[in-house]
Amino acid sequence: MATIARRGILFIVSGPSGAGKTTLSDAVLRVFEDLELSVSYTTRAPRGEEIDGVDYRFVDRERFDAMLAAGDLAEWAEVHAHRYGTPRQPLERAVAEGRDILLDIDVQGARKIKELFPDAVSVFLLPPDRATLAGRLRGRGTDDDATVSRRLQNACREIASAPDYDFLIVNVDRAAAAAEFEAIVRGERRRVARMRQDVLAAFVRRFETEP
Amino acid sequence: MATIARRGILFIVSGPSGAGKTTLSDAVLRVFEDLELSVSYTTRAPRGEEIDGVDYRFVDRERFDAMLAAGDLAEWAEVHAHRYGTPRQPLERAVAEGRDILLDIDVQGARKIKELFPDAVSVFLLPPDRATLAGRLRGRGTDDDATVSRRLQNACREIASAPDYDFLIVNVDRAAAAAEFEAIVRGERRRVARMRQDVLAAFVRRFETEP
Repeated sequence: MATIARRGILFIVSGPSGAGKTTLSDAVLRVFEDLELSVSYTTRAPRGEEIDGVDYRFVDRERFDAMLAAGDLAEWAEVHAHRYGTPRQPLERAVAEGRDILLDIDVQGARKIKELFPDAVSVFLLPPDRATLAGRLRGRGTDDDATVSRRLQNACREIASAPDYDFLIVNVDRAAAAAEFEAIVRGERRRVARMRQDVLAAFVRRFETEP
Repeated sequence: MATIARRGILFIVSGPSGAGKTTLSDAVLRVFEDLELSVSYTTRAPRGEEIDGVDYRFVDRERFDAMLAAGDLAEWAEVHAHRYGTPRQPLERAVAEGRDILLDIDVQGARKIKELFPDAVSVFLLPPDRATLAGRLRGRGTDDDATVSRRLQNACREIASAPDYDFLIVNVDRAAAAAEFEAIVRGERRRVARMRQDVLAAFVRRFETEP
């Protein structure tokens, strides 16, 4: 028995738009078969090749607001007149059952998740500098100049919250950033404070009592 | 600038005799060129191919006790009539200068280092079970049966302190154990709490002020 049973871990990856959160999340999810992505609910329409239940759960406003009223959302926000929210019960279940969840989430959402789940591991992904960030935001080619400019301002404001996170990764090279995130996942899984203390105690006691 | 200046980290690897601390330490030191091994002072004579200044610093009792009296030892112990101690100043300098140190140290020593340096990262290495531990202690072939038996009893008692550590690795496979320790090192190096807050603040501020 090389693994001592433990609580599940919520890994939050956050950072400004354009930092590379989604690319990083995809890379880390490919490495860890036993890391699940938290899928948000949203009232906006699917874009491009987005798949319901994979990228988001696309719901109408009525359904969204019913979840909100029932307390079923761990965090939610309205962005450009669309609502986005993270369902709460799957996170609670995962922690109790020892499964790990990855949340790719904006700065405001990350703050709320961390309030609700203080044991969550929060990782802030930083672009190396403002020029690189601006280049990445323009490079998407999906938004007009005014939108890019507004996003850049928002991003630079959001970066001010980096010191509130547990870990910080500067995304110069995507492979290096993914390797650092992987190390954080592997390391945190070995943390004694997350292990089930009854199981750990039993494991330790066996050394005293075995023949 | 992908790295934000930070304090050095003291990585403690501890566990009972026979858990595989030295093999693990050697593997991790090969991976990280910028991780230095803390070299203990001892009053015992060199054994086999041990090199002064590499495996230990071999000193006479008078020199050892002078260091002890001067408060120059972070921890020390007498084992089988020989004294062993960890010099304090190299650890303090490393933390201040942002260099990381690995301490391969027994359970009592680890406790004292952690008291003196609460930010140290402590990793407990566990054998998978008592039978494997007994086999490893016998397998060395350097000790008689009575010594092996006494070591096994000591080891099983020391294992009771595993829950006091930050991280726990069960050493089933040496490569897997080394990979887990590596992940802990890489991960802890990205921890915001260890970064120099003035440097981090300056890094963040640049996003607001850059053109």
